[in-house]
Amino acid sequence: MTATIVKGQPVANIIQEELAAKVKTLQAKGINPKLAVVLAGGNEASKVYANSKKKVADKMGIQFELTTKPDDVTTEELLALLDKLNADPSVHGILVELPLPKGVAKEPVMNRINPKKDVDGVNPINRGYLLGGQEKLAIVPATPMSCIELIQRSGVNLKGALVALLGRGDTVGRPLASLLLNRDATVTMCHTKTKDVASITKKAEIVVAAAGSAAFVKPEMLSPGQFVVDVGINAKPDGSGICGDVDPAAAEVVGSLTPVPGGVGSLTTTIIMGNLLKAIEIQGLG
Amino acid sequence: MTATIVKGQPVANIIQEELAAKVKTLQAKGINPKLAVVLAGGNEASKVYANSKKKVADKMGIQFELTTKPDDVTTEELLALLDKLNADPSVHGILVELPLPKGVAKEPVMNRINPKKDVDGVNPINRGYLLGGQEKLAIVPATPMSCIELIQRSGVNLKGALVALLGRGDTVGRPLASLLLNRDATVTMCHTKTKDVASITKKAEIVVAAAGSAAFVKPEMLSPGQFVVDVGINAKPDGSGICGDVDPAAAEVVGSLTPVPGGVGSLTTTIIMGNLLKAIEIQGLG
Repeated sequence: MTATIVKGQPVANIIQEELAAKVKTLQAKGINPKLAVVLAGGNEASKVYANSKKKVADKMGIQFELTTKPDDVTTEELLALLDKLNADPSVHGILVELPLPKGVAKEPVMNRINPKKDVDGVNPINRGYLLGGQEKLAIVPATPMSCIELIQRSGVNLKGALVALLGRGDTVGRPLASLLLNRDATVTMCHTKTKDVASITKKAEIVVAAAGSAAFVKPEMLSPGQFVVDVGINAKPDGSGICGDVDPAAAEVVGSLTPVPGGVGSLTTTIIMGNLLKAIEIQGLG
Repeated sequence: MTATIVKGQPVANIIQEELAAKVKTLQAKGINPKLAVVLAGGNEASKVYANSKKKVADKMGIQFELTTKPDDVTTEELLALLDKLNADPSVHGILVELPLPKGVAKEPVMNRINPKKDVDGVNPINRGYLLGGQEKLAIVPATPMSCIELIQRSGVNLKGALVALLGRGDTVGRPLASLLLNRDATVTMCHTKTKDVASITKKAEIVVAAAGSAAFVKPEMLSPGQFVVDVGINAKPDGSGICGDVDPAAAEVVGSLTPVPGGVGSLTTTIIMGNLLKAIEIQGLG
């Protein structure tokens, strides 16, 4: 194996230390950062994610408030809950775990979160700031920001770097393209309709795979020295766990590779906490 | 010369006919589409643009209301005017000509326009819908949409097409990248920090130049058969008028080229009128 395996947890630990120091500064001013998480329905993965947020919040001295709702919660009930959390001055950040139960409409729920408390950047206003080149005003979705942190904190310079980005979803691909552009990367956005993806990935310096397709990126699509970020979370065909969008054999070819699990996914919860502190700033506190 | 010169006016005429038919249908239902344009300060180009909107509106049976404000108008006065236009049920679309006078803050003004009346798609909510893959809900900025219309109405299939997009501005480059992705193009976004732009443009099937640099795209950066869209509007170095981002000598190399003036710019006013009709739909009228 030639590649450096770039794990998420060491980067998460460094960021958590930075954030914990900021939390202390806020507390000294009488501000107690508080994250409210809404868990609607019995999705098992969502429960795990919510619990992992509580753990990181506890570790960093951030208050955590979980509200659970049953599977048969209505859109109206969730909107009313969000109105309450939006209006509560003790709550600085709000995150609604996805997916929502079948009977609930996602759009109105995402759109109802106060943009200034929207710690996963799902409200169109935050997305608009990001698209419009106003990243400073935006709270940025956690997964694409995790990719940026993994790349930059590994010492890779994005300025002028040629990036092949696989996937154009609204959760990762599109916001990540904006984040990369804002850092002066040259970005090619590829997707299911792209002809000859390999000709694009082979020439890139950085490859980000957010295609949502198990082991889609094969070693022969890659080149020596590349930095490869694997954002995929796919069920293994044999049901034995999760795997990424990049064939692990890619490690024989490229320079650096983020693993799945243990790569990007180990960072997102920490980024949410960073977003909470940015939200406090945007709210004019702190 | 080998290239087909793709002029904007013939495409504008076709779209105007389609829209005029829709205007008649709306009028038969008692809805009289009305566009309100705000012209703040004495910028000569803005006056020309506002007047050109009036002309096209007149031609299509669309009501046009111009409000002018002096150079020393304040941000507060403009916000109050927008509140009035937002609340006026006879006004279906609002456009504020740019640039604003020096003393006025652009962001709050753009953000105050009711997103449902925002016919140039400048409000972050409309940009957010576009970035978030919800183009149906968005009112899209006129210039990038003009590029799409010029390409598609010339019979070029965007699906799977390799597009080199030069420029990452919030008015053209970024929203255009989203529009192209939504139409299944593979998009490489280039900018001032991109190394070896020519290696990217030469391989593309479609090149869109929105770099803001006179004659930046030289014939030797292009290839036979390409469709080249020139979005640039630059003063000619000798002061004798305007020129695009593409060296006109490119016409000796490529397959199709939109001219400057007379290309993209001849279409934007018509697209604004189309946005007005989309706004009426989004408002639940029509």
